[in-house]
Amino acid sequence: MQNKIRIGIVGYGNVGKGAEHAVLNAPDMELVAIISRRLNLEVASKVPVVTVEDCINWSDKIDVLLMCGGSATDLMVQTPYFTRYFNTVDSFDTHVRIPEHFDNVDKVAKASGHISVISTGWDPGLFSLNRAIAESILPQGSDYTFWGPGVSQGHSDAIRRIDGVLDAKQYTLPVDGIIETIRSGQTPTLTTREKHKRDCYVVAEAGANLALIEKTIKEMPNYFADYDTTVTFLSAEQFQAEHSNMPHGGFVFRSGITANNHKQVVEFALKLDSNPEFTANAMVAYARAAHRIHQSGEVGAMTVFDIAPKHLSLRSNAELRAELL
Amino acid sequence: MQNKIRIGIVGYGNVGKGAEHAVLNAPDMELVAIISRRLNLEVASKVPVVTVEDCINWSDKIDVLLMCGGSATDLMVQTPYFTRYFNTVDSFDTHVRIPEHFDNVDKVAKASGHISVISTGWDPGLFSLNRAIAESILPQGSDYTFWGPGVSQGHSDAIRRIDGVLDAKQYTLPVDGIIETIRSGQTPTLTTREKHKRDCYVVAEAGANLALIEKTIKEMPNYFADYDTTVTFLSAEQFQAEHSNMPHGGFVFRSGITANNHKQVVEFALKLDSNPEFTANAMVAYARAAHRIHQSGEVGAMTVFDIAPKHLSLRSNAELRAELL
Repeated sequence: MQNKIRIGIVGYGNVGKGAEHAVLNAPDMELVAIISRRLNLEVASKVPVVTVEDCINWSDKIDVLLMCGGSATDLMVQTPYFTRYFNTVDSFDTHVRIPEHFDNVDKVAKASGHISVISTGWDPGLFSLNRAIAESILPQGSDYTFWGPGVSQGHSDAIRRIDGVLDAKQYTLPVDGIIETIRSGQTPTLTTREKHKRDCYVVAEAGANLALIEKTIKEMPNYFADYDTTVTFLSAEQFQAEHSNMPHGGFVFRSGITANNHKQVVEFALKLDSNPEFTANAMVAYARAAHRIHQSGEVGAMTVFDIAPKHLSLRSNAELRAELL
Repeated sequence: MQNKIRIGIVGYGNVGKGAEHAVLNAPDMELVAIISRRLNLEVASKVPVVTVEDCINWSDKIDVLLMCGGSATDLMVQTPYFTRYFNTVDSFDTHVRIPEHFDNVDKVAKASGHISVISTGWDPGLFSLNRAIAESILPQGSDYTFWGPGVSQGHSDAIRRIDGVLDAKQYTLPVDGIIETIRSGQTPTLTTREKHKRDCYVVAEAGANLALIEKTIKEMPNYFADYDTTVTFLSAEQFQAEHSNMPHGGFVFRSGITANNHKQVVEFALKLDSNPEFTANAMVAYARAAHRIHQSGEVGAMTVFDIAPKHLSLRSNAELRAELL
């Protein structure tokens, strides 16, 4: 029997907790430690909680670290740092800074002899994979990516900063009917407003000027002004009851033509009741790949584009061919 | 500038013609020859038509051969034969015989120092890829594959063998509403009849017993008896006008749960106006991969599971990360 892949998790927010659950349920993995700044942290799995400083002493006890911090401030620092000592997997999702992050991590990974798979998850991640494969097969064509229905953390935060707002959640959604239009093979050129709309649910302070809050939201540049936006006020109780989950998802389309101008439409869609838990599960599958690829002697930074799908699977190659091909 | 990948095409049916078009439109490829049993064949591209016997003399002029014959009789013989002399890509789709075909081709490929990518296309192919990736990310879950709306060649042939039938086309379709049910996150156990239905369009001889033809179709064991089947008779002219294309497609779902029993649904769908042309385009992308992998020194048989997605793309790795991740 092969040794289990020894996993550590850095960060214990929603993604970290999802990863903990996924690793505990993976028959080829063992959860070794949670790495956190909070020493008095209680973790569901009861594995040791290790500080960032002490973590270095665990480098011969952990095969892959799952970097479960946020892209805004954590990962651009943490992934290069930990890759000095460990193989790592992250879900860095600030698209414009991916090349810079890749180069930073690649240098450290090559110098220290590790593998780091960056920007896993679903977008970047599975959506990227589908964009690349579909474009390769249908070079003559158009791409469409739609997000939602799902919660945008950044937009929710922007609403919460408005005077008189106690809490808020913003859902991004494809515009009504647009998915069916693209699915049918049409290839329109779409403005921002024609692709997505934004629905906001807001808890306001007693006596707040609701009309002013609504106007402030709808006219906010970059965030809302270019979209059709609805604002719904509701009580704290109703907000808690109906808007405490983190659903998300979306659609990637490639609509192309082949010989004789035949239309061909490729669609990939996700409907996720929990965005962070799905991201965590994707990271765990890519941790399996990172370990296998590292064992074969490769080092450096990688993305979903560099990894043969067989490395993600619990099944043997022969079993994949017999059962899933 | 890199040398172009030199492509040969074996077989000039619908798939071969689609491949010819796709290769002519690929900026990194050059179409060198069509290999055919028919010496007087006229080909759109005007490239040389070469016999199977003479083809061996072209082994230093062709980098990858696209095997565009059928699975029923051609590919199990042709792919091992040509892999002795060339890198090859096929779309072998008899699922139960894939392990045997893989082993045959793998032996030849290793002995002769070639790469052969078998069973590319969409099912097997892209559908298989999605089944494997989604299962790896959502190990707790259920799989669903639906085909259609699309033409089944085997079922159309079975109808044409009935007395009094001049021509026929059979479309396989998912049962009404079932896609929406699975898309919504439900995970029912489905019988054959609950998954697909079969619509048949038949041109009968003048004076044929239509009721008997319809009964013979609907009661045909294996082919139709287990399905809800409709039979529509129409004139030869109408048949020609409305049923001369080869549309196909289908859906692959993985419906799973993560921590806290959150539902997560992954969907991949194809809507193809031309099944053979889409298959051809997929083969051309995998030919690019076969050539690159062979150049890196690897030999043997491979499937879609073994190939990193970057190898399919015209873009550089840095460009993939900057543009599509």
